[in-house]
Amino acid sequence: MVKTIRKAVQRGARTPDGLAVAEGPNLVREALRSGVRIEAILATPRAAELLDAGLSVPDLSVQWIDESLMNQISAVENNQGVLALLDIGESPLSGALAGSAALTVALDGIQDPGNAGAIVRSAEAFGASGVVFLKGSVSPWNPKTLRASAGSLLRIPFALVGWDDFLSGVTARGLSLVSADPHAARRIDEISLSGPTAILIGNEGRGVPGDHAKSAIPVRIPTQGVESLNAALAAGILLYEARRQRS
Amino acid sequence: MVKTIRKAVQRGARTPDGLAVAEGPNLVREALRSGVRIEAILATPRAAELLDAGLSVPDLSVQWIDESLMNQISAVENNQGVLALLDIGESPLSGALAGSAALTVALDGIQDPGNAGAIVRSAEAFGASGVVFLKGSVSPWNPKTLRASAGSLLRIPFALVGWDDFLSGVTARGLSLVSADPHAARRIDEISLSGPTAILIGNEGRGVPGDHAKSAIPVRIPTQGVESLNAALAAGILLYEARRQRS
Repeated sequence: MVKTIRKAVQRGARTPDGLAVAEGPNLVREALRSGVRIEAILATPRAAELLDAGLSVPDLSVQWIDESLMNQISAVENNQGVLALLDIGESPLSGALAGSAALTVALDGIQDPGNAGAIVRSAEAFGASGVVFLKGSVSPWNPKTLRASAGSLLRIPFALVGWDDFLSGVTARGLSLVSADPHAARRIDEISLSGPTAILIGNEGRGVPGDHAKSAIPVRIPTQGVESLNAALAAGILLYEARRQRS
Repeated sequence: MVKTIRKAVQRGARTPDGLAVAEGPNLVREALRSGVRIEAILATPRAAELLDAGLSVPDLSVQWIDESLMNQISAVENNQGVLALLDIGESPLSGALAGSAALTVALDGIQDPGNAGAIVRSAEAFGASGVVFLKGSVSPWNPKTLRASAGSLLRIPFALVGWDDFLSGVTARGLSLVSADPHAARRIDEISLSGPTAILIGNEGRGVPGDHAKSAIPVRIPTQGVESLNAALAAGILLYEARRQRS
């Protein structure tokens, strides 16, 4: 099991059984709260107090391992003494686009799991219906994505699809597709984001691929001086603006 | 010189001569553009092409060192082949609070240099007058702060002061002091951020210290489901909202 987990952590993916690695007490606590299926919990002796204090875990499911073994598995420099294997399934695309006032964020080539997780966290915070990981983006099951989402990935529906399926779904459901573009003529507060909307967030360096951008309405976050904003910040501001317009 | 730089990088501070370490070709390019005084440039042979191509550097100021030496200095895992020593002075507090429609961000206990740099980058992007690093926050001259600011620290005025001086300055100049607080009654889009405004951004874990918050108007970024937003995202959204109200 340790080998399997280590490989998943190193590859930034799920285990061959489809389980996601959630590391650290905060994330394990969120998993217990959220009701996702927990396949196993691995903990070191120093996590005993923590488990006793804050986490209500059926004893049987905790497997005790020693520090050196945990260090071999852990994705972080100082392991946090506990990790869990979670069964977090993706939603169908319809689940991430649902609702009469749908608000969806689509990651289109985001590579950094920290950015991806932060975007999912903002999506939940601003009441988005769901998140779409378009093919070519970092995995939602990358342990670093999960950790950066601070548990939001356990609660908000997310789908994994290719571009063509995504565009068909968005079109069929009548969502406006907008794409942040520093050179766009219209500012994000000059267009309506109150109707069903999908927000496209492109790769950290290259932005949204040109042939995808053609299908979207370009909108500009009003900035000056800097070349661009960080992808997670751009997503957070677009989501905030959509929420503001709807309130 | 190498020892001095390494120590500054490790301590997250300036050199004893007051020079900031700017690492990587992008930041060195920004430094050359910005007109700050460059004391020295250190580069490895593989950076030669890069220096020839994109950087107009007077030959004399480049000191060539080998890869292993650069690795000893560098703050990042894979050194980027070039760094510069820069003379980046702070502004007086008045410089960061200036203007009839002043917009200032004050870091009040921010510890992560990545967050601090991202906040400075947003401050520039949304046209802030300046940034204040309150005592107890990470150093603006931490090489990681500088890198995360993507060069914005070279262009926007920043001041370093204690709380009492800051509060006196803000009060004397008639700025509204607002502080993001998830429990505040009023949303950020329900109060006016159009007049001279200073935004207080607290520590990543503990937020704004209680006795400082008492002097500020609490405002809420309208979120749900999550406990809080990342400090850099909260700052970015507040700055965006202020800019939106002013446009």
